[in-house]
Amino acid sequence: MSTVGKPVICKAAIAWEAGKPLVVEDVEVGAPKAHEVRIKLAYTGVCHTDAYTLSGADPEGAFPVVLGHEGAGIVESVGEGVTNVKVGDHVIALYTPECGECKFCASGKTNLCGKIRATQGRGVMPDGTSRFKCVRTGESLLHFMGCSTFSEYTVVADISVVAVQPEAPMDRTCLLGCGITTGYGAATITANIQPGDNVAVFGAGCVGLSVVQGAAAKLKGKGRIFVIDINDDKKSWATKFGATDFVNPTKIDGKRIQDYLVDVTDGGFEWTFDCTGNVEVMRAALECCHKGWGESIIIGVAAAGKEISTRPFQLVTGRVWRGCAFGGVKGRSQLPGLVQDYLDGVLKVDEFITDRRGLSDINQAFHDMHSGLAVRTVLDVSK
Amino acid sequence: MSTVGKPVICKAAIAWEAGKPLVVEDVEVGAPKAHEVRIKLAYTGVCHTDAYTLSGADPEGAFPVVLGHEGAGIVESVGEGVTNVKVGDHVIALYTPECGECKFCASGKTNLCGKIRATQGRGVMPDGTSRFKCVRTGESLLHFMGCSTFSEYTVVADISVVAVQPEAPMDRTCLLGCGITTGYGAATITANIQPGDNVAVFGAGCVGLSVVQGAAAKLKGKGRIFVIDINDDKKSWATKFGATDFVNPTKIDGKRIQDYLVDVTDGGFEWTFDCTGNVEVMRAALECCHKGWGESIIIGVAAAGKEISTRPFQLVTGRVWRGCAFGGVKGRSQLPGLVQDYLDGVLKVDEFITDRRGLSDINQAFHDMHSGLAVRTVLDVSK
Repeated sequence: MSTVGKPVICKAAIAWEAGKPLVVEDVEVGAPKAHEVRIKLAYTGVCHTDAYTLSGADPEGAFPVVLGHEGAGIVESVGEGVTNVKVGDHVIALYTPECGECKFCASGKTNLCGKIRATQGRGVMPDGTSRFKCVRTGESLLHFMGCSTFSEYTVVADISVVAVQPEAPMDRTCLLGCGITTGYGAATITANIQPGDNVAVFGAGCVGLSVVQGAAAKLKGKGRIFVIDINDDKKSWATKFGATDFVNPTKIDGKRIQDYLVDVTDGGFEWTFDCTGNVEVMRAALECCHKGWGESIIIGVAAAGKEISTRPFQLVTGRVWRGCAFGGVKGRSQLPGLVQDYLDGVLKVDEFITDRRGLSDINQAFHDMHSGLAVRTVLDVSK
Repeated sequence: MSTVGKPVICKAAIAWEAGKPLVVEDVEVGAPKAHEVRIKLAYTGVCHTDAYTLSGADPEGAFPVVLGHEGAGIVESVGEGVTNVKVGDHVIALYTPECGECKFCASGKTNLCGKIRATQGRGVMPDGTSRFKCVRTGESLLHFMGCSTFSEYTVVADISVVAVQPEAPMDRTCLLGCGITTGYGAATITANIQPGDNVAVFGAGCVGLSVVQGAAAKLKGKGRIFVIDINDDKKSWATKFGATDFVNPTKIDGKRIQDYLVDVTDGGFEWTFDCTGNVEVMRAALECCHKGWGESIIIGVAAAGKEISTRPFQLVTGRVWRGCAFGGVKGRSQLPGLVQDYLDGVLKVDEFITDRRGLSDINQAFHDMHSGLAVRTVLDVSK
């Protein structure tokens, strides 16, 4: 029996309140309204940003909510006026939408589409309402980052979804919804890495390792890629993705990491990337840039209220401090290109998957991420 | 009688100790050694950087020293191996040298030549010695910023001097040795201002007003130039150099200046410039950049130990923080081009000169600069 035009009852993992485990239970997912798309999700990743909001540390976090923003699935139905995807398309949900028309999209200078920013930030669809309701309590549930992928079905704005090559397995493409794209895009789209450059990547999680492979693709074997991480187990990971050097900053005889790195590279790096969210690491990443031209790119999300600092002399002498969200990747225009890189064997994705579970095991996936056991757990939302 | 190859006795303004007035008295200026140039200075400007070092606040400042770094004159004699200038050339002294060979010059990416950085920072010539001696006490005097223009004669490294068009009057070209070039270069060389962009300039001194005219040259009448200064008298100055708007941040009903500016520009600026050296202003200049692409350029020199701060979210959402020294201008390659802009009427210089004095009045020139009475006093070093 077709579900088109009707609410769907399915399982979702609900975050009822900050700091508490998620609860997998029945939700009702409303039919998509105009310019909305209902996706039958297949797989979702679990990301630190989900954990950050769940922890209660995110000042904009609100509950109850259906978290998750790294998901792939198949379009189940579309609302009126949707032209960019059709029923049956294999899609990736986009927490950074791309309308193509707003001041930001029209500029061609940024991927930060402004069209639905306000409602997305409030956890509702562009019309100001939610498509999620808890069957047990009847309560309306908030959306998250315009995606809410911890559910068998979700509804997203049409500008928040992109159709990709159906031959790419969805248990891989889901990871292109955030971490891998954020790192790979930062290296290949936001930065302008040239063969011969030296690159430093702080933090060897999914994002950092994706920067490494993006940098390796740009360097074409010329230039060094340093990975800096306090966990020595990350050395083999770094090497696998293309790093040439690994430094544990707790094991350099008490030197400041930026001083150590400037020394061993005879001046510092052309490009550095913070993938930790730690503001002291962000400072180190800037200060180990080469005088005159080195650029540091902030990717990590800092805790609420934290600030970055440095002496202005660092910038006056030619270093540049910038950042990016979602790697600077324009989801609808550029994500199919990254999927193609994956299909062509240029972009590693399978290697990130350290575990596979069903949605019912989602709290274990969070636990494994916090413990450092998992780089990425992929959840089959049907289980 | 020729002075070539011999020491010259002449007047110089000596800074004997921090916080004290300069003393104009006889100094002996040694003959130029290999790769050195002795200049008979004609005119010098007085700049806030001279005042900063004189105040004692500069942790690298040392005494006794011959200050001044904004000077023009005529080559009196050259040491062995000097090929880039010859006796009789009209020249500008360069505190940012250009050797063309070091890692920095060879990169093509920066104007921060590294060749004589260490000795220049210590106040001596590249061979580690001084060419200045006080006649009265016999003491050796330090050089300053590789220039020391508060003197009738000075000796500089050959990479620290550029010959310019002799038809350009030296009482104007002296000001291209620092302030005007720093601002105009920041707008025309460091930034990439396009017609239609909006520009904000914080601080309407010589540097800030020079940014304004550089921005005006790039905008070609399309786009706005805001000048922000706490001194309302600067409004007419700003307008004269091409500003379209003037804001006194103390007169906006207690709003934060960055919030006010984002409001009135519907999102902020493509380019902002700090020309104050105040780290809180630097933060405001970054935070009023347009989300997604705005870039802020730090030009001002902050007091020792001061740090800039912001939330990393400002960068993650697409703002860029950079800086430049001497406007990013490569002195020997690019300064003659700025002199040509002056000769062609594109670059205003005369308008900056609010007073003319002799070297013997130098302490009054510092006083007028501190009081805000003068934008630039030009000193005739022969008087």
